[in-house]
Amino acid sequence: MTTPETDLTHPITAPAEPTTAAEADRIVTAAAEAAPVWANTDRATRSRALDAIADALDAAAPVLVPTAQRETHLAEGRLTGELKRTTFQLRLFAEAVREGGYLDARIDRADPEWPMGAPRPDLRRWQVPVGPVVVFAASNFPFAFRVAGGDTASALAAGCPVVLKAHPGHPDLSATTGAVVRAALARGGFPPGVFDLVWGDEAGRAALSHPLVKAGAFTGSITGGRALFDIASSRPEPIPFFGELGSVNPVFVTRAADAARGAEIAAEFVSSFTLGAGQFCTKPGVLLVPDSAAVTDALRAAELTQSAPLLNDRIAAGHRATREALSSKPGVEVLRAGATPEGDAPTPTLLSTDVTTLLADLDGLLTECFGPTSLVVTYDEEQDLVRVAEALDGQLTATLVAEETDVVAADLARALVGKAGRLLWNQWPTGVSVTHAQQHGGPYPATTAPATTSVGTAAITRFLRPVAYQNFPQHLLPDELSDTPTAPVPRRVDGALEN
Amino acid sequence: MTTPETDLTHPITAPAEPTTAAEADRIVTAAAEAAPVWANTDRATRSRALDAIADALDAAAPVLVPTAQRETHLAEGRLTGELKRTTFQLRLFAEAVREGGYLDARIDRADPEWPMGAPRPDLRRWQVPVGPVVVFAASNFPFAFRVAGGDTASALAAGCPVVLKAHPGHPDLSATTGAVVRAALARGGFPPGVFDLVWGDEAGRAALSHPLVKAGAFTGSITGGRALFDIASSRPEPIPFFGELGSVNPVFVTRAADAARGAEIAAEFVSSFTLGAGQFCTKPGVLLVPDSAAVTDALRAAELTQSAPLLNDRIAAGHRATREALSSKPGVEVLRAGATPEGDAPTPTLLSTDVTTLLADLDGLLTECFGPTSLVVTYDEEQDLVRVAEALDGQLTATLVAEETDVVAADLARALVGKAGRLLWNQWPTGVSVTHAQQHGGPYPATTAPATTSVGTAAITRFLRPVAYQNFPQHLLPDELSDTPTAPVPRRVDGALEN
Repeated sequence: MTTPETDLTHPITAPAEPTTAAEADRIVTAAAEAAPVWANTDRATRSRALDAIADALDAAAPVLVPTAQRETHLAEGRLTGELKRTTFQLRLFAEAVREGGYLDARIDRADPEWPMGAPRPDLRRWQVPVGPVVVFAASNFPFAFRVAGGDTASALAAGCPVVLKAHPGHPDLSATTGAVVRAALARGGFPPGVFDLVWGDEAGRAALSHPLVKAGAFTGSITGGRALFDIASSRPEPIPFFGELGSVNPVFVTRAADAARGAEIAAEFVSSFTLGAGQFCTKPGVLLVPDSAAVTDALRAAELTQSAPLLNDRIAAGHRATREALSSKPGVEVLRAGATPEGDAPTPTLLSTDVTTLLADLDGLLTECFGPTSLVVTYDEEQDLVRVAEALDGQLTATLVAEETDVVAADLARALVGKAGRLLWNQWPTGVSVTHAQQHGGPYPATTAPATTSVGTAAITRFLRPVAYQNFPQHLLPDELSDTPTAPVPRRVDGALEN
Repeated sequence: MTTPETDLTHPITAPAEPTTAAEADRIVTAAAEAAPVWANTDRATRSRALDAIADALDAAAPVLVPTAQRETHLAEGRLTGELKRTTFQLRLFAEAVREGGYLDARIDRADPEWPMGAPRPDLRRWQVPVGPVVVFAASNFPFAFRVAGGDTASALAAGCPVVLKAHPGHPDLSATTGAVVRAALARGGFPPGVFDLVWGDEAGRAALSHPLVKAGAFTGSITGGRALFDIASSRPEPIPFFGELGSVNPVFVTRAADAARGAEIAAEFVSSFTLGAGQFCTKPGVLLVPDSAAVTDALRAAELTQSAPLLNDRIAAGHRATREALSSKPGVEVLRAGATPEGDAPTPTLLSTDVTTLLADLDGLLTECFGPTSLVVTYDEEQDLVRVAEALDGQLTATLVAEETDVVAADLARALVGKAGRLLWNQWPTGVSVTHAQQHGGPYPATTAPATTSVGTAAITRFLRPVAYQNFPQHLLPDELSDTPTAPVPRRVDGALEN
């Protein structure tokens, strides 16, 4: 007998037509029917299912990686690494589900002496899955932020079925990855509604508007993300929409850091803003440096090379247009442009201006330019760094390149805490580790839900809501809240943490 | 020297005019200026400030309680108890701030061997206050859900300044309570922007729309709450809006429970639905009982008395209108009406219908009727209870009145978990303890933010957002994330909980 997995010797071809309204409705309805089954799957079994998806994706690498190469212009090494990150991520979520701390289990036992006027009843609270989630896949990470990426992994970990709106940039890869995930779930005996794909913008919007859908997740542009957020918020029953939109990820270089290691900073910056052809949501899009900086001198002489083309023609055209718009603004010059690259690769470009020009047109100049273009901004006095920080819109990251003795650093960090989800010190924002303490999010327009993260184990909590049981008999409580749990989880009992 | 507190020998008179747009802008701006001061106040100091507010409110009881009596029609005993609950709540939040678990502090130390392709950087994550919060006070609990109520207490605990939109139902009480809070904060040396009041719907909307405001909280009607949610969601920078709107809090009585203790259930139900003249957001608005139930017989003969008038004329008129609308629906009868009460008190009323009629017009019949009116619904077979549970809109609470041997209970509980924030077993929903494990929230339209609670210590997290520090030097980290914290908090270090 052949299993679906052993059949995967070649990529699955994506459907030629977008998903119809009737089919989208059927898929969402199947997700809603699967929701109680998946939600009530015990944590050990759900963890094993996540591990099995990871194993199946690793096993399918010989088909997945070449398909991704064909559809994304990305190099084999990058894609192999990204697939590894993706399956690592699934296994980390499996581990978090096994541990159970994300459930925030709390037990307050009945207390007739409760000093509030009335006796305290027995109350036990944990988190339950919200129901079907629509995930809108991103284009720039074909594995880590796509069909089986962080949003899907965290929603499945939470116990929610996923309806994945495939990205048009890489249809066969989406279809093939989807088939691997579905086959792994089918082998575990789970209903097909736990994970399915829809194709086309209209089907995506229909799914997000569907009364049975309880949350949305998205990575992409400010315009696209805001339009979907508005759909989610204006439904008869509004639902949360976890959109990661745009960020310019400013980097603040102090005078002392420039003096101590200007050339090194310049080289690291070039590596970071051209990484993945600049197609990272955490690409440093603006670098603030002192006037007459060693960093600037080094950048003027830097080798800016880029051999990889952008992901697709739409992104290439968008990069050219945004770069032209920025460079034609008054007070903006080209600091350094790379040599005209071979083939379809973009020309990496550094523009420059001064802090006065920047502050006069902050919204215009701090536009995200998706691709290898960044803006170098010179300042006179370090207090300008704090002024820019205070004037910023919300960001995914903000970076301090500084010396430990810099007095401006404390003020700068304090201002940036209000503006970004992750602050870095002498490292570069383009790497986003998948860990417990990661925060990938930030105030609008970086995201539509600044209180959450889309990377790291805390991402699970986006798809949960709390439920308290009052005075319930033991046999009707979830195992995690019972007096004698078979699989203990960390709990807060009468206010005190127990683990 | 007299302090503001010792001056409080008589109530403060509310302003005669609503807050102007210019004044609302000034108040929000002052809140934004106070935000970093309050946010960066260390936890021990902030806890003491919350305790000081509680002490000041307790000390002002001789002025506050009579003022509340004059403006709300509520009895002295109820008001004294509610003030006690309010100051208990402030002190419980102070304790939670001292303990620090709500910060969800996480530390992932640098790991060069991290199996994800790249070394893991040092990442440290906690929660920071979002900034100024607008709180819309409710009418039904003049202390616990008002000026110094749960929303204000949890926002202040989180480290956020509060702009309180006073409820028009009790202006002098609002002004007086506000003065007590402001005086207590002033004595602590905090800027006046940490807490202030605005008056009038227009000023409330202006504050919620203000770019410097970062969240809203509300308790009230579905119509009013949805209108404010729409304002918050459609801002250029959307902000979270924690609205508690409407709920009918269904109670499901099994056949066995009815047979075992029908009269007792009826008596408890009458106490619960008439408590506080039915002016509880958790009032049981619908009771499902078997056909020919002992509960129904007891209710037909019940003494329904109500001596207290409703909070104000608007609420009294709303209660009459909703009761008339419900009782004039086809298939709905009056099961029992109380004697015509003396003075302005409402007539407590029980309407009745059957489950077929209910399921045919669920939205129409499950309308919240604010006041002492509830609907008794008879069913033929217990599976009808599950059908109703599955058809329900979101609820704050759902209650099972059942025997431990009831086989329907498991299915019913499973269906209700998807619909309500708190499930009760053989207790009544009208009491809402302020504890760690409390959940006061639920799917829309019970609230606009089902992943949060407005009662209990978990309410603090509504006003926080996570920030991660990558590779930061010790001297720039918050104490809570440093290697050697002076005031330790529970932390998750390399994935393992430490407390």
